[in-house]
Amino acid sequence: MQEIIAFANSLAEKSGEIIQRYFRTDFEVESKSDLSPVTIADKEVEKTLREMIESAYPQDGILGEEYARKESQSGRTWVVDPIDGTKSFMIGRPTFGTLIALCEDDKPVMGVIDQPILKERWVGTLEQTTMNGKPVKTRKCPSLHDARVCSTTPMMFDNLSDYGRAYHLFEKPPRMAWGGDCYMYGLIASGWMDIAFEQNLSAHDFAALVPVIKGAGGHISDWRGDELTLNSAGKVIAVGDPELWPEVEFMIRKSPF
Amino acid sequence: MQEIIAFANSLAEKSGEIIQRYFRTDFEVESKSDLSPVTIADKEVEKTLREMIESAYPQDGILGEEYARKESQSGRTWVVDPIDGTKSFMIGRPTFGTLIALCEDDKPVMGVIDQPILKERWVGTLEQTTMNGKPVKTRKCPSLHDARVCSTTPMMFDNLSDYGRAYHLFEKPPRMAWGGDCYMYGLIASGWMDIAFEQNLSAHDFAALVPVIKGAGGHISDWRGDELTLNSAGKVIAVGDPELWPEVEFMIRKSPF
Repeated sequence: MQEIIAFANSLAEKSGEIIQRYFRTDFEVESKSDLSPVTIADKEVEKTLREMIESAYPQDGILGEEYARKESQSGRTWVVDPIDGTKSFMIGRPTFGTLIALCEDDKPVMGVIDQPILKERWVGTLEQTTMNGKPVKTRKCPSLHDARVCSTTPMMFDNLSDYGRAYHLFEKPPRMAWGGDCYMYGLIASGWMDIAFEQNLSAHDFAALVPVIKGAGGHISDWRGDELTLNSAGKVIAVGDPELWPEVEFMIRKSPF
Repeated sequence: MQEIIAFANSLAEKSGEIIQRYFRTDFEVESKSDLSPVTIADKEVEKTLREMIESAYPQDGILGEEYARKESQSGRTWVVDPIDGTKSFMIGRPTFGTLIALCEDDKPVMGVIDQPILKERWVGTLEQTTMNGKPVKTRKCPSLHDARVCSTTPMMFDNLSDYGRAYHLFEKPPRMAWGGDCYMYGLIASGWMDIAFEQNLSAHDFAALVPVIKGAGGHISDWRGDELTLNSAGKVIAVGDPELWPEVEFMIRKSPF
């Protein structure tokens, strides 16, 4: 695993170099079918990281956001999201991140959340998570009322029912912030916030988050509590204090929406 | 005005020193009647800035968030919000800011948005805005469809009608981000994003924003287009490109909500 972590760090170093060149500069924007902004930086990073992975581990699969999936011949798959939080990137706000995960079969076992402008990097295995090389732990949170909660956007929820469910859950704790992106999972790992709640994430959006949260001692799953794998549907909840999870699960189930 | 700007910078330096000591540390949280988190840092900054203002300009009024208003004997009033974006502060996300404004009568004529962790500071007069000392300008945005839009939280809107109005407005531009705080107005002044749309702001939340946006060439007003003064109701919209304002105003008026 040490070799894997060192290699993942070299990927993050490289992606950071590219992204720093593009952040807060004018650049071309291209619309995808879902109209989310995709930058030149996004593609350049993914292309570069794919080349590095193919060169170092030619048998491993690669799953990215921009290019076709490369099937694995080793049982291992790298999952890359060059710029998670493209909207934050586009408005010049340094809360986006580069996500890099390694999966064994469909299960994430190593994850990196890298914020290249603030130079903050979380690296998680299922046993330990570090931020900038130092071990971090989630914090205790005795009740939902005290929880610091964050989500990315109300518009990520499928419909008013799902937003209603989120709203219902989030109304309880008065400390709800929005505009999370992957960065908020790093904040949970470091013990500065407690709950992240999202919908409609793709595998490249959440794979890296799993080892980061678990390695720091937290709970991360789909909304029903099932393990996240590359095949999960994209409803993601992370709770820093695993002892708070039953209360959160109860709130999700009993939501009238 | 140069003397005022120099003094405002010294206030921001001081508040930044205090805030840096508290950011991402454990601290006591005290609930206010509206349950918004108020930190020790918040009070310590406001107390310190009040003392500095009273010492330098004893005739000026002071309007803050935490302590009683001091009436002006000079016609000038300083408006201070130590930590705008307390939720971001509490989750360890450096997108909160310190807001400092000077008003002549009820009209903001100088404003500071300071982000002490990223060390980014916008200082605006009605004629010019600088970021870290360098003049900045809003960017052109030819149509609402191309606009990069941000708001702080859907929960700031009074009811589903007002959130519907926001949603209706924001659905058009696909580049909508949440979690803005005062920082997004700095991003507009620097030409990295285009529109901020908020409700239920207090005078200490928006006074500093007015000179920052106007000095950078942008439009800022209430939702009807009226000038913001200390007596405004707290519906705030900023549009980087003033030529886009008529289209935005039209969208607000024709919202079915």
